[in-house]
Amino acid sequence: MDLSGTTVALDGLGVESGFDVLNEGIRLAAGDGIRLRVFGPADAIEVSGLPGVEVIDCTDQITNDDDPVPSVRSRPDSSIVRAVADVGAGNSESVVSLGSTGATMAASTFGLKRLKGVKRPALAAQVPLPGRTVLFLDIGANVEVRAQHLVQFAWLGAAFSKSVLGVERPEVGLLSVGEEAGKGREEVVEAHAALVGAGEFDFIGNVEGRDLPAGNADVIVTDGFTGNVVTKALEGTVKRVVGEISAAARKNPLSAAGGLLLKPALGGLRHDLHPDTTGGAILLGLRKTAVVGHGSSGSDGVANAIRLAARSARVDAPGLTEEMLHRVGVNRGSIDSATDV
Amino acid sequence: MDLSGTTVALDGLGVESGFDVLNEGIRLAAGDGIRLRVFGPADAIEVSGLPGVEVIDCTDQITNDDDPVPSVRSRPDSSIVRAVADVGAGNSESVVSLGSTGATMAASTFGLKRLKGVKRPALAAQVPLPGRTVLFLDIGANVEVRAQHLVQFAWLGAAFSKSVLGVERPEVGLLSVGEEAGKGREEVVEAHAALVGAGEFDFIGNVEGRDLPAGNADVIVTDGFTGNVVTKALEGTVKRVVGEISAAARKNPLSAAGGLLLKPALGGLRHDLHPDTTGGAILLGLRKTAVVGHGSSGSDGVANAIRLAARSARVDAPGLTEEMLHRVGVNRGSIDSATDV
Repeated sequence: MDLSGTTVALDGLGVESGFDVLNEGIRLAAGDGIRLRVFGPADAIEVSGLPGVEVIDCTDQITNDDDPVPSVRSRPDSSIVRAVADVGAGNSESVVSLGSTGATMAASTFGLKRLKGVKRPALAAQVPLPGRTVLFLDIGANVEVRAQHLVQFAWLGAAFSKSVLGVERPEVGLLSVGEEAGKGREEVVEAHAALVGAGEFDFIGNVEGRDLPAGNADVIVTDGFTGNVVTKALEGTVKRVVGEISAAARKNPLSAAGGLLLKPALGGLRHDLHPDTTGGAILLGLRKTAVVGHGSSGSDGVANAIRLAARSARVDAPGLTEEMLHRVGVNRGSIDSATDV
Repeated sequence: MDLSGTTVALDGLGVESGFDVLNEGIRLAAGDGIRLRVFGPADAIEVSGLPGVEVIDCTDQITNDDDPVPSVRSRPDSSIVRAVADVGAGNSESVVSLGSTGATMAASTFGLKRLKGVKRPALAAQVPLPGRTVLFLDIGANVEVRAQHLVQFAWLGAAFSKSVLGVERPEVGLLSVGEEAGKGREEVVEAHAALVGAGEFDFIGNVEGRDLPAGNADVIVTDGFTGNVVTKALEGTVKRVVGEISAAARKNPLSAAGGLLLKPALGGLRHDLHPDTTGGAILLGLRKTAVVGHGSSGSDGVANAIRLAARSARVDAPGLTEEMLHRVGVNRGSIDSATDV
């Protein structure tokens, strides 16, 4: 997709790996012709010679240690609030942060309006797997949900999968403790019933925990508590297993030689499983797209987060989502009334 | 621990890998002096020459395809119902099944009484990790819980960790979406408040999804929906990563050679991460112990499930649990009244 000419607002504070990594990420994204408005310290962000990239000096960072909602409300000069406001004002089309997820969610929810009829925005992670990337939501925006929210998450995920990730007819699964329609919490059972026969995507019914790493769906829907815990458990497990194998390879000269011989073959796998590959999590359900990259991103991760935001703007993912919701009536109460209890 | 003379009732149906594996598992456990009463087909279970092992002929198997509760109620001659009844009648001290988890939970909950004051039995998995095995509960007995149930799960887990797993002062964490006491669902926040200052174990507060694979606690407590999904996601992830690495090793002769050189060093890791190592999941909160081994267990898995049940009987884990609950008042309403809403 040609991304040239799209404009992204970038929160320039919060990249854990430092400004060199951020600057290199900016350079890579600018190389695709993406225009950037970077809200960060002018003396650390290096953009000379990059056409279409502008720095707006800004030094107040809301960190992971700050309580998101009150911080966002009380600090209009913070980099994330200004970056979001830039989108709200129409200067940029999407916003990207590599900083606090909570602050980005809070600032975006306040600063960008919700799509018509959407009750709750949801945070979606792209789980990178060899062969298929799974869009997994909600991973933390809503720790408590009702059936109608789960139903909307399915539509939000399907719309993004179609419009931005290019999956023509996404397979959508609902996370539960068994495949049968009657398995799971009350709101899950109810959402299942409401999703059967959904047009525009293939509802494949309930999926289980193992279906996520197996990549058995394009979109997997759950509440923000379960989604958050599962995402972190999954990342931790990959890290642990890879770490233990590396440790085993360092055990003695023979296994070290084995590790060296295996290295090139493992390179592709490492790339496939690395969060940098996908560009980060996306806040869905708002009129503009907000992307939250990993704080520990490398320069590729920074660039891919920016590209994801640009792609979403180029195809007008929020607009297409609203159209779809309107077409199927999810935002006009027809599903609400069936599932809201 | 000397396990000789303990008596375990074994459901002899449901081992996916077949009777040869089951028979070898029985032989291994009998080698430790454990007495066994096996409920299964007399013509398939081979125990001749094994002192203290008896087969009670039984061919009706409740499978994963059967609805557990009605099946258990209507099929008194099924192997799992008879094995549980054998414990109820005092002929055996604990029960082990390698078959349907749902049927084992249903049969045990009906057939073995709950400990005094325990509201809900919980299913605990031992997550095998190099260095530390984490006891993780509830992994599926209760898809919906209240704060008081989470509090009891913490005590049930701590008591088992102490008495059977030999952890002198278990570190107990409560699974949530952030470390702060205020993070998470309402019932989690409430349970957190009730657990602060618990005697007899170290309540380390909220833990996150990544703390499970990292092994950052001896016991991790959650509801049965989240626990079920996370356990399956974790198992699936380990399988996937190991599978992808094996596939990478088969890619070309060089990497294949590397894989071969690494193999011995990886053997220990495979053993550490293998579900067979720990013997299976344990149903806690009943007057006798029920162990559910993996259906795909090898003979070591079968033997370790039997050993776990025997160990629990030898130390009288249920009795010690009840004593502890009584001592701290968890079963007398003091915590109920603080947290039951």
